[in-house]
Amino acid sequence: MSRPMAEDIAALSGRESAARVAAGTLAPEAVARAFAARIAAREDDVQAWMAFDAGRAIVEAKAAPAGPLAGVTFGVKDVIETADMPTGYGSAVYQGSRPVADAPVVALTRQFGGMVLGKTVSTEFAMSSPGKTRNPFNPAHTPGGSSSGSCAAVGAGMAHAAFGTQTSGSIIRPAAYCGVVGYKPSFGTLNRTGAKPLSDSLDTIGLMTRDVRDAAFITGVLAENPAIAVGTLRPPRVGLFRTSRWALAEPATRAALERATAAIRAGGGTVVDLDVPEDFERLYAFHDAVMGWETPRTLAYERNVLGDRISPITRGFLDLLARATRADYDAALAALKQREAIVERLLGGCDVLLTPAAPGEAPTGLAATGDPVFNKVWTLLHAPALTVPAGYGPAGLPVGVQVVGRIGADGDTLTAAAFIEDALAS
Amino acid sequence: MSRPMAEDIAALSGRESAARVAAGTLAPEAVARAFAARIAAREDDVQAWMAFDAGRAIVEAKAAPAGPLAGVTFGVKDVIETADMPTGYGSAVYQGSRPVADAPVVALTRQFGGMVLGKTVSTEFAMSSPGKTRNPFNPAHTPGGSSSGSCAAVGAGMAHAAFGTQTSGSIIRPAAYCGVVGYKPSFGTLNRTGAKPLSDSLDTIGLMTRDVRDAAFITGVLAENPAIAVGTLRPPRVGLFRTSRWALAEPATRAALERATAAIRAGGGTVVDLDVPEDFERLYAFHDAVMGWETPRTLAYERNVLGDRISPITRGFLDLLARATRADYDAALAALKQREAIVERLLGGCDVLLTPAAPGEAPTGLAATGDPVFNKVWTLLHAPALTVPAGYGPAGLPVGVQVVGRIGADGDTLTAAAFIEDALAS
Repeated sequence: MSRPMAEDIAALSGRESAARVAAGTLAPEAVARAFAARIAAREDDVQAWMAFDAGRAIVEAKAAPAGPLAGVTFGVKDVIETADMPTGYGSAVYQGSRPVADAPVVALTRQFGGMVLGKTVSTEFAMSSPGKTRNPFNPAHTPGGSSSGSCAAVGAGMAHAAFGTQTSGSIIRPAAYCGVVGYKPSFGTLNRTGAKPLSDSLDTIGLMTRDVRDAAFITGVLAENPAIAVGTLRPPRVGLFRTSRWALAEPATRAALERATAAIRAGGGTVVDLDVPEDFERLYAFHDAVMGWETPRTLAYERNVLGDRISPITRGFLDLLARATRADYDAALAALKQREAIVERLLGGCDVLLTPAAPGEAPTGLAATGDPVFNKVWTLLHAPALTVPAGYGPAGLPVGVQVVGRIGADGDTLTAAAFIEDALAS
Repeated sequence: MSRPMAEDIAALSGRESAARVAAGTLAPEAVARAFAARIAAREDDVQAWMAFDAGRAIVEAKAAPAGPLAGVTFGVKDVIETADMPTGYGSAVYQGSRPVADAPVVALTRQFGGMVLGKTVSTEFAMSSPGKTRNPFNPAHTPGGSSSGSCAAVGAGMAHAAFGTQTSGSIIRPAAYCGVVGYKPSFGTLNRTGAKPLSDSLDTIGLMTRDVRDAAFITGVLAENPAIAVGTLRPPRVGLFRTSRWALAEPATRAALERATAAIRAGGGTVVDLDVPEDFERLYAFHDAVMGWETPRTLAYERNVLGDRISPITRGFLDLLARATRADYDAALAALKQREAIVERLLGGCDVLLTPAAPGEAPTGLAATGDPVFNKVWTLLHAPALTVPAGYGPAGLPVGVQVVGRIGADGDTLTAAAFIEDALAS
C-alpha cells in the first residue's frame, strides 16, 4: 500500500487522524503540512484566518507531546487569548496585541497533543460587526458570526476543529451556514478563561468539527470528562420544537427539519410535535435583559475610552443593549434559577429537541452575519446544543438542524445528535 | 472656618469625601494630593503598592468626571487589569505587563468619578506566595493574602477603598488582619472580567473600606444596584456559628466574637447559639473539589509553560489542588445546585450569621499569609460576607468578626453589619 497523499491526510476525521498518530502510522508534522497545503489552496477565497504561519504550525507539530489529541488540528477564534500568536479580539483597535498567556482551552489542547494552526476571524468582540471571512460554499454569502473564521475554516477543510464562543448564537448559526457541526456544550463545560467576556451568565466556549463524533471526542478530552462521549446509539424520542418565532423559519430550514424528521423515523426513532408554551416569549425577554445588562458593562472600557474607535455597528449594538433595566435583569436572574425545570418542561419527556439552527441558508452579502433568533434561548438556558448539517437550500448553501438536550446531559445529547447525523446520511 | 489640612482630607470617609466634592467644597485634586502625602508617609513601612505615581494620580483627579464616586480614592489589586498601569498578576513572570483594557470594575469606577491611585500588591496569581507587603499595624506580621496590598493600603489610610478578589478567603481574612472592613458581595455582584481567574465557580470581586457604610455605598454605585445599601437599622437576630473548625479559633477570635455578641445584645439585638450541622464538613470537601478541579486547569499555561519560573509555593499549591478528581468535582457541583437551601438551613431563621473572620490576629512573619479556613465555605456558597473590626488581640493587632447573610440579600447583610459595627463602637 502506498503512503496516503497530503490531500488524503487532511480529509481524515480528527479522531481518525489521532488514531493513526497514536498507532505510529502518521506523523503530526505530515498532518500539519497537509493542512498548510489545504489552507494555501482555500484561504484566498475564504479568508478564515487572522493569523496563520505554516512554518510555526510545522514547528509546533514537531514539538507536540504525545496525547489523545496528537494529530488533530485546531483553529482558535481571535477572541481567545494566545501568548505566541496575536489576539485582536476581532477588533482593529486591538489588532496585533499579545496576551501574556494562552487561554486554558488552548493550553489544554496543546497539553493533550493537539496542534494549534492559527487564529480565526471573529466579528468585533464576538458581537455583530463582521470580519473579512466569506462563506466557504459561496464567497458572496456571509459565513455567519461571530465565530465566522472558525466555522469557515472547518467548512473549507482547513482544520479538523476550531474553537468558537456563543453568547447569543455565535457557534450554532455560523456552523449551520458553513455546513459543519457546531457544538455549544452545557454552560461551564469548557473553561472560558481567556475568551473575551461579553456576559458572565451566558458566555460559552464550544467547537466546530466535521462531524458529531469529533465534537464529542475533542470536547471529552478537553473537559477531561468521559461522560462527554457518543454512547451506544439507540433510536431517540425527539421533540420537534418550532419556538414562538417559527414565522422566521424559511422554507430551507423547514425542509431541513422535514428531512431530519423523516430520517429519524426511518431509522426507528420517534418524532413528536411539541407545543410551544404560551410563556416561551418571556425567554427572549430574559436573554435581552441578561445580555443587555451585562455586556455594555463588561465592555465599559471599550465604550468609555475607545468609543470613537470601535466600529459603528458595535457601538450601536452596545447602545441598544444598554436599554436593559436593573429590574428586568433581576427578574430574569430570579426566574432563571429554575433553568433545569424550564428545560425539562420544554422537553416534554423527549430525549432531545429538534429545532431550527438558523432562519435559513446564509444570507447574501458580507455586511451582516444573520439572526441568532433560534439560538438565544438555548444559550440562556445553559442547555447543550448542536447543529447537524441536514442538506442544502435553494441557493445551494448548507442548512443545519439544531439538537438541544438537558443541562449537563451532554453525552445523551451527543448520542442523539450522532443518531440523527447517521440517519441523515443513510 | 479655615480650609481643612491635607491630613484631615485623607481622614474623611469615602462617602464624606464624595459629599464634599459633590457640594463643591472639596476639589478631587486636593483629595489626590492628600492621599499622595499619606502614601509618602506610610508606604516605606507598609509596601502596599505595586504601582503608584503621584503625578499620574493628580492628573487623573483633575480629569475625573462628576459622579457619585468623585472624591473617592481606590487601590486596585494587581491581579485586576488596567490599561494605563502595569498589571503583574502578583507574579514576577508577568511583572510590568500591560493589558489592552481596564477591567470593568476599574472602568466603571472611573466612569462614576472615582480616582484610581494605583495598583496594590497581590500574592502570586492571588494564591499563596506572598508579596512584599507588611501589616500596617506591625511590619513584622503578614497583612494576610491574597489581597495583601489592598487591605494594607486601606488599613494604613492610603486609600478610601481598594478592590480585592476572593476564591477561598482572600478578602475577608486579610481585611480582618489589617483592621478594615472587607466585603465579599454575593457571587456575581461585581463584574469580574479582567480579574485573573482561578475558579469560575468561586471567584468574586469585593472591596476593602474604612467602614461598612463605605462598602455599601461604593458597591451599590458600582453594581448599579440601589438594593445594595445600608437600610434603616433595626436590632438583628444573629446566629453565632462556630463552624466545624472551631478548634482553630484562637483566643483573640473567641474574645472578638464575645465582644460582638455582648455589643449586639446591649444594642437590643438577639444572638442565638446555632448548632453546626453534622454534615458541615462536606462543604470543606466541596470547596477543595471545586477549586482543586478548576484552578490547576485555569492556570494550565502557567503550569505547563512557565512551571519553572513561577514560585515554588504556587507550584506546590497547584500540585496539591490538582489531586481533586472529576468525580468529586461533579458531586460537589451537583450538591451546590442547592446553595440557597444550604444557606437557609445554616441560618436557622436568623438574619445573619456571626462567625470567625480568621483564626486570630495576623501571624508573625511575612513568609505565609494565614489560613482561609473560616472563609472558604461562604465563598463556596456564594453568600455575602463582611468582616467588621472588633478590637485587638494580645499582640495588639486587629481582629475581625465575620457577618454572613443570604445569597443576594446584600442589603440586609450590610444593614446588619452596620448595626454590629455601630454596636461595637458604642
